[in-house]
Amino acid sequence: MSEITFLYVTTPNAEIAARIARALVDERLVACANILAEMRSVYRWEGKVEIGTETPVIFKTTTEGAAAARNRIIALHPHEVPCVVALPIDRKQSNAGFLDWIVQSVEG
Amino acid sequence: MSEITFLYVTTPNAEIAARIARALVDERLVACANILAEMRSVYRWEGKVEIGTETPVIFKTTTEGAAAARNRIIALHPHEVPCVVALPIDRKQSNAGFLDWIVQSVEG
Amino acid sequence: MSEITFLYVTTPNAEIAARIARALVDERLVACANILAEMRSVYRWEGKVEIGTETPVIFKTTTEGAAAARNRIIALHPHEVPCVVALPIDRKQSNAGFLDWIVQSVEG
Repeated sequence: MSEITFLYVTTPNAEIAARIARALVDERLVACANILAEMRSVYRWEGKVEIGTETPVIFKTTTEGAAAARNRIIALHPHEVPCVVALPIDRKQSNAGFLDWIVQSVEG
Repeated sequence: MSEITFLYVTTPNAEIAARIARALVDERLVACANILAEMRSVYRWEGKVEIGTETPVIFKTTTEGAAAARNRIIALHPHEVPCVVALPIDRKQSNAGFLDWIVQSVEG
Repeated sequence: MSEITFLYVTTPNAEIAARIARALVDERLVACANILAEMRSVYRWEGKVEIGTETPVIFKTTTEGAAAARNRIIALHPHEVPCVVALPIDRKQSNAGFLDWIVQSVEG
């Protein structure tokens, strides 16, 4: 049974988030994407602590397909080195039916 | 020492999220639930890429109690195959006091 | 290569979240912090199920530096036993360039 991975991604805004999410779902690289509400990010830029707005997205795919999904997100993302971070899932405690739906959506 | 698991769940809206969260806390199946702000979900439905609103919830419980919590969420959820996905936690790097509070809240 | 850890933290409001986030980034204990939109938390308090607002934050740091970041968050946080929970990351499926940026930001 395929393992599942979440990809946590930050994007400049909700519009770019939706564009990337639609492409990944359309191309069956992920089963679905959750575009969370706008957030603020705190980071260091040229020696100063900055705060700016971003939109986070959680992409749901198989662990086997995660690298291809990650690479496509990087290709579509306007930043040179975007935050695309994989979160492992505990299959045993999850809703098996939902994980199977993710596998069918991606592996078709 | 009991391990801890987060359950990431998506629900149709904030009202249903709160109803399920109250039941799980009241029945001591989880210590607490974080109902995040409304989000948009992108998914494939009958061959077309759709976008709709949902409300995500993070439930915090023991790994031992996660299956019972998951099953209760599935029973209370209006969808047939809801997203209930378990995220493993790294106990060593977490605030031990908070994890102990989760265990006491659930195992009483 | 350093492993990466996310710290999921809940705070009373966005102002306190930003104050803690700025300190952690300024002191190079984390590379960056995502202050998510305000959420509602459901929990048990003195035997009753309560619902209140909170602001979640995701801090990104090295696994090696996670304990120091956790302790600093606890020291700055107004609650006695705050939710500071570590989420393990799957380096292999993540954007290696972004993880390297986290390491450089923290280990300088």
